[in-house]
Amino acid sequence: MTPKCFPDGKKAKRWSRSHGCKQRFETERGGPAIACSLIPISRLLGSESETDQAAHCTDVEERGPRRHPGCWKMLTVAMCVALLGCLQAQELRGHVSVILLGATGDLARKYLWRGLFQLYLDEAGKDYSFSFHGAALTSTKQGQAFIAKVLESLSCPEDVAPDRCSELKGQFQRLSAYRHLATREDYMALSKDIEAQVQRGGLREAGRIFYFSVPPFAYADIARNINSSCRPGPGAWLRVVLEKPFGHDHLSAQQLATELGGFFREEEMYRVDHYLGKQAVAQILPFRDQNRKALDGLWSRHHVERVEIIMKETVDAEGRTSFYEEYGVIRDVLQNHLTEVLTLVAMELPHNISSSESVLQHKLRAFRALRGLQKGSAVLGQYQAYSEQVRREQQKPDSFHSLTPTFAGVLVHMDNLRWEGVPFILMSGKALDERVGYARILFRNQAYCVQNDEHWVADQSRCLPRQIVFYIGHGELGSPAVLVSRNLFRPSLPPESWKELGARPGLRLFGRPLSDFYAYSPVREQDAYSVLISHIFHGRKDSFVTTENLLASWGFWTPLLDGLAHEVPRLYPGGAENGHLLDFEFGGARLCFSQQQPEQLVPGPGPAPMPSGFQVLKARYRESPLISAWPEELIAKLADDIEATAVRAVRRFGAFHLALSGGSSPVPLFQQLATRHYGFPWAHTHLWLVDERCVPLWDPESNFQHLQTHLLQHIRVPYYNIHPMPVHLRQRLCAEEDQGAQTYASEISALVANSSFDLVLLGMGADGHTASLFPQSPSGLDGEQLVVLTESPSRPFQRMSLSLPLINRARKVAVLVMGRVKREITVLVSRVGHEPKKWPISGVLPTSGQLVWYMDYEAFLG
Amino acid sequence: MTPKCFPDGKKAKRWSRSHGCKQRFETERGGPAIACSLIPISRLLGSESETDQAAHCTDVEERGPRRHPGCWKMLTVAMCVALLGCLQAQELRGHVSVILLGATGDLARKYLWRGLFQLYLDEAGKDYSFSFHGAALTSTKQGQAFIAKVLESLSCPEDVAPDRCSELKGQFQRLSAYRHLATREDYMALSKDIEAQVQRGGLREAGRIFYFSVPPFAYADIARNINSSCRPGPGAWLRVVLEKPFGHDHLSAQQLATELGGFFREEEMYRVDHYLGKQAVAQILPFRDQNRKALDGLWSRHHVERVEIIMKETVDAEGRTSFYEEYGVIRDVLQNHLTEVLTLVAMELPHNISSSESVLQHKLRAFRALRGLQKGSAVLGQYQAYSEQVRREQQKPDSFHSLTPTFAGVLVHMDNLRWEGVPFILMSGKALDERVGYARILFRNQAYCVQNDEHWVADQSRCLPRQIVFYIGHGELGSPAVLVSRNLFRPSLPPESWKELGARPGLRLFGRPLSDFYAYSPVREQDAYSVLISHIFHGRKDSFVTTENLLASWGFWTPLLDGLAHEVPRLYPGGAENGHLLDFEFGGARLCFSQQQPEQLVPGPGPAPMPSGFQVLKARYRESPLISAWPEELIAKLADDIEATAVRAVRRFGAFHLALSGGSSPVPLFQQLATRHYGFPWAHTHLWLVDERCVPLWDPESNFQHLQTHLLQHIRVPYYNIHPMPVHLRQRLCAEEDQGAQTYASEISALVANSSFDLVLLGMGADGHTASLFPQSPSGLDGEQLVVLTESPSRPFQRMSLSLPLINRARKVAVLVMGRVKREITVLVSRVGHEPKKWPISGVLPTSGQLVWYMDYEAFLG
Repeated sequence: MTPKCFPDGKKAKRWSRSHGCKQRFETERGGPAIACSLIPISRLLGSESETDQAAHCTDVEERGPRRHPGCWKMLTVAMCVALLGCLQAQELRGHVSVILLGATGDLARKYLWRGLFQLYLDEAGKDYSFSFHGAALTSTKQGQAFIAKVLESLSCPEDVAPDRCSELKGQFQRLSAYRHLATREDYMALSKDIEAQVQRGGLREAGRIFYFSVPPFAYADIARNINSSCRPGPGAWLRVVLEKPFGHDHLSAQQLATELGGFFREEEMYRVDHYLGKQAVAQILPFRDQNRKALDGLWSRHHVERVEIIMKETVDAEGRTSFYEEYGVIRDVLQNHLTEVLTLVAMELPHNISSSESVLQHKLRAFRALRGLQKGSAVLGQYQAYSEQVRREQQKPDSFHSLTPTFAGVLVHMDNLRWEGVPFILMSGKALDERVGYARILFRNQAYCVQNDEHWVADQSRCLPRQIVFYIGHGELGSPAVLVSRNLFRPSLPPESWKELGARPGLRLFGRPLSDFYAYSPVREQDAYSVLISHIFHGRKDSFVTTENLLASWGFWTPLLDGLAHEVPRLYPGGAENGHLLDFEFGGARLCFSQQQPEQLVPGPGPAPMPSGFQVLKARYRESPLISAWPEELIAKLADDIEATAVRAVRRFGAFHLALSGGSSPVPLFQQLATRHYGFPWAHTHLWLVDERCVPLWDPESNFQHLQTHLLQHIRVPYYNIHPMPVHLRQRLCAEEDQGAQTYASEISALVANSSFDLVLLGMGADGHTASLFPQSPSGLDGEQLVVLTESPSRPFQRMSLSLPLINRARKVAVLVMGRVKREITVLVSRVGHEPKKWPISGVLPTSGQLVWYMDYEAFLG
Repeated sequence: MTPKCFPDGKKAKRWSRSHGCKQRFETERGGPAIACSLIPISRLLGSESETDQAAHCTDVEERGPRRHPGCWKMLTVAMCVALLGCLQAQELRGHVSVILLGATGDLARKYLWRGLFQLYLDEAGKDYSFSFHGAALTSTKQGQAFIAKVLESLSCPEDVAPDRCSELKGQFQRLSAYRHLATREDYMALSKDIEAQVQRGGLREAGRIFYFSVPPFAYADIARNINSSCRPGPGAWLRVVLEKPFGHDHLSAQQLATELGGFFREEEMYRVDHYLGKQAVAQILPFRDQNRKALDGLWSRHHVERVEIIMKETVDAEGRTSFYEEYGVIRDVLQNHLTEVLTLVAMELPHNISSSESVLQHKLRAFRALRGLQKGSAVLGQYQAYSEQVRREQQKPDSFHSLTPTFAGVLVHMDNLRWEGVPFILMSGKALDERVGYARILFRNQAYCVQNDEHWVADQSRCLPRQIVFYIGHGELGSPAVLVSRNLFRPSLPPESWKELGARPGLRLFGRPLSDFYAYSPVREQDAYSVLISHIFHGRKDSFVTTENLLASWGFWTPLLDGLAHEVPRLYPGGAENGHLLDFEFGGARLCFSQQQPEQLVPGPGPAPMPSGFQVLKARYRESPLISAWPEELIAKLADDIEATAVRAVRRFGAFHLALSGGSSPVPLFQQLATRHYGFPWAHTHLWLVDERCVPLWDPESNFQHLQTHLLQHIRVPYYNIHPMPVHLRQRLCAEEDQGAQTYASEISALVANSSFDLVLLGMGADGHTASLFPQSPSGLDGEQLVVLTESPSRPFQRMSLSLPLINRARKVAVLVMGRVKREITVLVSRVGHEPKKWPISGVLPTSGQLVWYMDYEAFLG
């Protein structure tokens, strides 16, 4: 990591000493101090003398900052004077070299050169001088021609006079040059040239920006070359700018990050998500900050009905299928752009939003609060022409059908008190009816309006929709905007950069006329790359994706991507033809299309259709009643039976004592009970554990923890009716001498009449175990003990379990067996007699109660 | 209660024997069996022979029931034949006498005579003969004249030909007579006359209906006379029909019920709430029953956004102020009509809705689930002209201003799993912009519609509003209706009584064109009284208000009425002028007007305005910091301080140990913490109790129960971080030998480092006690014990408490003191030294931690 190429070390050192004042300021601001004095282009482009600087500072004071909202707070007149002193003491101007790698590529041509020119317009003539190096692997001649053409096509902002514009373009062209950059030697030469230029100009090297506008496979080589041969010397910074994709999933992202981490320090890397440079997106945090007072009482589950984060495209993937086929819409749009917007909307607002560090930390916390996605959290679509396009562009056989989604709707929930229960809807797709992007916060209607609705007035009626929209662009509005319903509050936006939109009669947005909103658009529209290049220059890391945040995002999306890998997307015709085909809806955490699946126009390799409407089969198993059905019906039937038993027990005895097993099988049962059984007498139900692993109750492996997550959180069982097993006493786990088993037995004896549970729910392991009673383990199969400590063949080895004799005292025992993996033991156990030492499940036979087997068809019929 | 006047006892007995079949059927159905064979008027009015009856039965079979939806299930052809056998065996027709008390009153003139005529049209010529006695206190001559006039004005249903109509009217007139009914002798004479008539006609007396259309003060006398002198003989039923008001509050309703209970059995009383006879209201349960499958997944908090139950009037109370001034809108409309509708919407649906008993029991359960109303649950208004009308009509002085509300909006919540969190909005008012009544169930939008909203189609888009409306009448539709959004489902309604509404272009209801709904209206509009009179005749008690249900309703409303007794209603101009003045909204359980209070046009005797915007005062008390403010600010400040302490503790130690006191003072603090502090690290917070009463944890007196209700239910503290005091061990309360105090002390020692709580929240009693450490009680003030059992001077006497030495080990102790009642002790304690035996609070002085006093101005400044 020792820099191999640097300017005259002594000189740099001298500079860093003599410019201590300057440098300290840089540290505080996280970027050059002069960032504060951004001033109108027209003024900047006039003659600049050092005495003018003071005027600019004062100017900034009076008008407020242009892009650094925190600036005016910091830059007092006193500081201006001090800074001016510094500037006067400074003998050498700072020099910044920008090396654009992939300078002849599409992105560079469309956005990056423009962004660099804008940077030059904004910053040159202030404290820095620049040189721009367009680098690529193209031959020098071709490269030069390309660059010349691009530079010629650049245009100035509207407020620059044509003459002045050509002058400025001329300056920029002279500072820009193409260079072939392939080998380490090329990089060393570049470094030398920069040093020479700095020295020649009597300058001080301030820093180097390497912008990677190249495919990811080229990253490593370039990074190695920069690190080994082109770092600036001490006192000057290095910033490398990376473009997505940053990996394909969590693992590959991690690998890429590790690799890059071998070459660059975290603070040197600027990963671009260009959405963060979109003006409406960049305004989310400042808006939340400047309207804290109004939003404080609104920005939570108590008021927000839903959040929609949407990017719709009309174009399709034609011409880009080789990229698209590998990524698909979730990796292309949701994992990055929409997720970034999501975190900006959902994160707790830092006290000081101009602290990059604080913003990034809060963002990370928002990631941690995201509830894990399941396969059912998403719906996928693919426009009909896609597979054909892939076949054509990638020479695939006619039989090829792609599973890559070009449309996705995903339901995200956050597990924190602010957002619990609020649906965050993320959606993106190609070949849709319109091009538009927005983040929309819709507030709940918590009013009743007494007059007939035809009398409602937009800014007075609290019953009309209340929403805040960060309108990213395009759509019917055609420009970025911030919209706030007039019945919410009049928002505050920085007047120098956002202006109120004029009337647009007839224009309706989100179901309401534009006049229903306070609507603001940027005074000057800027493309995202110009904004971001300026942020790179100013070191504003919060506009970029840190390694931690990147991995958090992949950590969140990868399980879903894995789960959906073989999912057949719904085909859609594209454009307005889609009708309601892609509309989707949610119940709980599950998402599904609103319309029934139409006939697939092209067959997909989907799973065999599930037989539905099957009757619940009633038969006998081991001489007890057996109920068999498809999983969903089975769980529904079991839940119904449990409720009926509960209602009877409460009616007869005033309470219902239910003992539940651990494991994953009961989870859908818990969910069913929690969300469908309103009549369940929870207030009179006591919950006991059938068995428990010897881990603390808060361990993710704990059966109790399962029960808490999937059931207790959703119902209202009184605290004192919940009876976890005391596996953790005196800071020890299942120590014989702590008598946890005896304690639990006493608790049972004290509360459960005759120690007869009203219902015990058991499972059956593939080895014939039940509860935590394992084959060939001596304890709990007979004898007097009600609760026992046992040994499991798998981790964690120690368990606590109800004993067979206690289980057999129950009024009712239900055994739930699900899945094909249970087929073998099901067959075996059907044939054996009473051999609990070999198959503990065979010892389950309630003395005077009832035993019922619940098996799904796969477990029962294979 | 022995009947004093009855027809020939032997004869009645003979009848009840010979008609056993008939009677059994009556018992099962709760009314005459023939209720099943309701048939079209046109057929009924033709000649009736006994052989025709069989045809009707079959008819019923084929077409389904008219009003008894359960009927077709029960009335099999076999039963028809059996019934027919019975009828043929019957020699004497049953005779029913209807005595309309207050026959010359307004209600009688407008509705009741019409209802009786309808009853005659529906039922005569079937199994019964009738006589109608219009009774009042008027002189016979005047009464006769009145009745003659009313009867002459009656009209037949549209489908009866004019000739036939005059014939029927003639018959009805001949069966109806006026009689003066004042003294006991009058009643005895009436009874004799009925008996004579029955005997003369060769009839059997079936029953007597007494309809009380008289003011409540007259009830007792009439009831006494009926009971003592006019009961029918054995085998015949008595039904007394009562009109509201049924009391003025819970106590008076109870008294009235007790009084009536001295004269009549519960099953004899039919309390009318005429809303239950409105066709759309009467359709709620049948609709829920017939659409069970579609509604099953929708009818709950998971899908319903809100329920609105509304009755708006344009008229005001002019001419009725003497009644209105005593009752007001809540007693007049909400306590009865709207509450009845609420229970029909919210109750669990009985398996068999044709069982009156079952319906009534389920209704009662719905009442039990209603969350208690608070003063803040309602907004009140009064139209501006009201006070003047009262002054004029009741000769009040000019200075008189009424506080009677003519408008009320009330927010109701139900504490059960089905409805938890769903707002039920009840609203009624006079002098509003339109006359309309409805119950509207609005479903949550749980869809995202991908296309731009201009492409949404009513029956396909799940994003358009989804609602079910029971439209009671009037309004823009002008008739009763049941409306179901087309994007929900196509409902099933009985086709013989409900028909689809025709198109009404341009008509919008609830924000949508009528064409967005499946809309049904009654085939034949019937007024509520006709429906109810028929139900009385058929013994359908579920259309009436039982004593239990009445008292449950008053029990629900009375605390609110008491709380609002001195509340000044907001004045409103009336009509469309009201604008948005009466719109209201809710946050949590509180309701408030959306607009700031405008200047009162007439001054009301309101409470003095609260000073607001007061600064939090910082001072010292007993040499420790004191924070003083108005209650709301004080609680907010304390909550902020606790959160800051919690965040710091979690950051430093990974956990926050908080010990909370019981009592009512912390309740607003709990609410503040639960609903406003999203950043609170609950997952890492351990909650301990400062003290506990020796009652089971589930006792309403338990401090833990308080904590559970006001805090734990709203946040997510892991189960194992909650540490109630073990006051209840081995089924005993605070027995020394169970060592609960020692157990708690060990738990604290094990989990809390150095037994130093991060924060202990205390209160201060008016006697200077704190925690459960009382003056002159020896334990817990010093010594080694961390947790002690103590004696309180008030019930429950036994307590468990942290000891002073343990409290003083805390890092921080906050003492919250609120209310004027604490003023004296505050002054006293400010002057005393360290005298914990006299004033335990004076012993609070953390050894190395911090003590902060939080007192509201009333406690601190008096």
